[in-house]
Amino acid sequence: MTANPRIAIDAMGGDDGPAIKIAGAAIARAKDPSLHFDFYGDEAEIAPEITRHPALKGASIFHTADAIEASEKPSQAIRRAKATSMGMAINAVKDGRAHAALSGGNTGALMAISKLALRTMPGIDRPALAALLPTLGETDLVMLDLGANTECDAQNLVQFAVMGSAYARTVLEIERPRVKLLNIGTEELKGTGELKEAASLLREADYLPMRFDGFTEGDKLSRGDVDVVVTDGFSGNIALKTAEGTARFVTDLLRRAFTSSIRSKAGFALSKPALHLLKVHLDPNNHNGAVFLGLNGLVVKSHGGANAKGVANAIGVAASMVRNDITRKISEDLDNFRAHTFPGDER
Amino acid sequence: MTANPRIAIDAMGGDDGPAIKIAGAAIARAKDPSLHFDFYGDEAEIAPEITRHPALKGASIFHTADAIEASEKPSQAIRRAKATSMGMAINAVKDGRAHAALSGGNTGALMAISKLALRTMPGIDRPALAALLPTLGETDLVMLDLGANTECDAQNLVQFAVMGSAYARTVLEIERPRVKLLNIGTEELKGTGELKEAASLLREADYLPMRFDGFTEGDKLSRGDVDVVVTDGFSGNIALKTAEGTARFVTDLLRRAFTSSIRSKAGFALSKPALHLLKVHLDPNNHNGAVFLGLNGLVVKSHGGANAKGVANAIGVAASMVRNDITRKISEDLDNFRAHTFPGDER
Repeated sequence: MTANPRIAIDAMGGDDGPAIKIAGAAIARAKDPSLHFDFYGDEAEIAPEITRHPALKGASIFHTADAIEASEKPSQAIRRAKATSMGMAINAVKDGRAHAALSGGNTGALMAISKLALRTMPGIDRPALAALLPTLGETDLVMLDLGANTECDAQNLVQFAVMGSAYARTVLEIERPRVKLLNIGTEELKGTGELKEAASLLREADYLPMRFDGFTEGDKLSRGDVDVVVTDGFSGNIALKTAEGTARFVTDLLRRAFTSSIRSKAGFALSKPALHLLKVHLDPNNHNGAVFLGLNGLVVKSHGGANAKGVANAIGVAASMVRNDITRKISEDLDNFRAHTFPGDER
Repeated sequence: MTANPRIAIDAMGGDDGPAIKIAGAAIARAKDPSLHFDFYGDEAEIAPEITRHPALKGASIFHTADAIEASEKPSQAIRRAKATSMGMAINAVKDGRAHAALSGGNTGALMAISKLALRTMPGIDRPALAALLPTLGETDLVMLDLGANTECDAQNLVQFAVMGSAYARTVLEIERPRVKLLNIGTEELKGTGELKEAASLLREADYLPMRFDGFTEGDKLSRGDVDVVVTDGFSGNIALKTAEGTARFVTDLLRRAFTSSIRSKAGFALSKPALHLLKVHLDPNNHNGAVFLGLNGLVVKSHGGANAKGVANAIGVAASMVRNDITRKISEDLDNFRAHTFPGDER
């Protein structure tokens, strides 16, 4: 239990300059004064922004003029990582100078640099990107992998289930999360060989702090009857982006409908307070903060276009994971899984 | 060009009995008296429904008491296909007694029976399931494969692109459809090896009646800047169902918002005519009719829960494909592709 999480923030990554990230940190710290921030990036840009937010008094700046570009290839980003704001923030986690790193920059580069610097946890073959998705139920759901691994085998999927459950226990505070594998049907015979094998391994792992409940499909994600949805990074990315695109599509149609006549404009004016709730529910800023799970250190990806409130939410995710020591939880669950699966195997 | 399409309808498949299918056929025939229908299923149930619709005068009934169950495994369905309403409707296409078959039954069984009875076209390794999706643009988009093939190689994807383009030229009447491959990023380096290889093959195939335009992502499907989206059946099924689920999720939230106060209820009442357009745009019945492409014969899958209007739309899709001789179009494009790719190869 870490009472005062210290978070290394890549102030340069993302669609905007440091101002949004710093404003987000100020919101987070006003809510939770025990948080500490170190900002990595251009001091000349960062310093004046920090002085605008009294809540950030005492925050440190680590200067660098170099930043990873949005379109930079991971292979290139790795080579010059050390001198960049993203690489320096991750190295702070590696060296124990921060509990978590946060960046709104290039996801591929963030993954590659994090993996190289922090290495995967013992028992994890590949880290995964996890995030919260809104549902009609009382809590959000955790979905992973969202794009870190294009192809996954059954062992990868099982490890994702263990990590996703630890994440749900930590961030959603659900004791035994309901876990399902994303598939193209719910019958046992459906899907790839990897999915069927992962399902059979998870079905037997009933000693783990999760309830494995078979397969789910893309149209059932928002129903609220599952806490953790596990999938390979290709399908997960397709599902996540299709959900985002469809939500935007429907709200665009809604906007067209409301502006199509004077009568509907009046109806919109009357309904506005109620529709505000819909907007809040769908605003990606309220679900900001994707997490790389399975590394020896915490790295949170903030959406490149997040606003200050979105950044504050991502910081909240990071702080919650630090406080709840999620890395240790994942590690214990994995040890438990291996002790049952390979009894006597001390690897 | 077939002036009078004759369509074999599996009256028993789907969530409801024959009544909906027969009512749908009546709507279709009232619009287009050149259509002819043969109904396959329980005569005792079908005959009284037909007499209720004067538009269906002269329709034939082919009696069978057997129907494929919704949960029946494809392997089992194949064995008893011949005596079932679904299998008999498909056999009518095979034997040239009908131009297309339509069923609202079990998709896996429909695919398996169709494939066995009609065989794949020369040059096609695997048939694919294609459907129209709504967009913000002027026309719908064609997406395939939506679940017929869990895993696909580059050649399969190229064949899907050829078939999807022929479908867009036929049903959407777009001379040179814009074609993209669904991926997890738009950069050339993203995605699986199969996708990269398919992209490179399609980039070179500029003599085909399509414009290949690289990769697209899940959040860009509804933008209206692409006519044909090609993907493997696993990702396609995940994307389609996630889009359906998200649209329902947002409209559920909207319903909650409108019923949350007296004020918002009044706003809803005022906006109702405008919101009706939204409902029409999102109603899956208006996009009903998925097509198995790549077989020596036309088979259309109607949604199991479609209403009469939805069935009529699916019949419209079938009729349009018959009239435009889509099988011949696909065959010509494939010959063209092979002649360029393997010059001198007469296989």
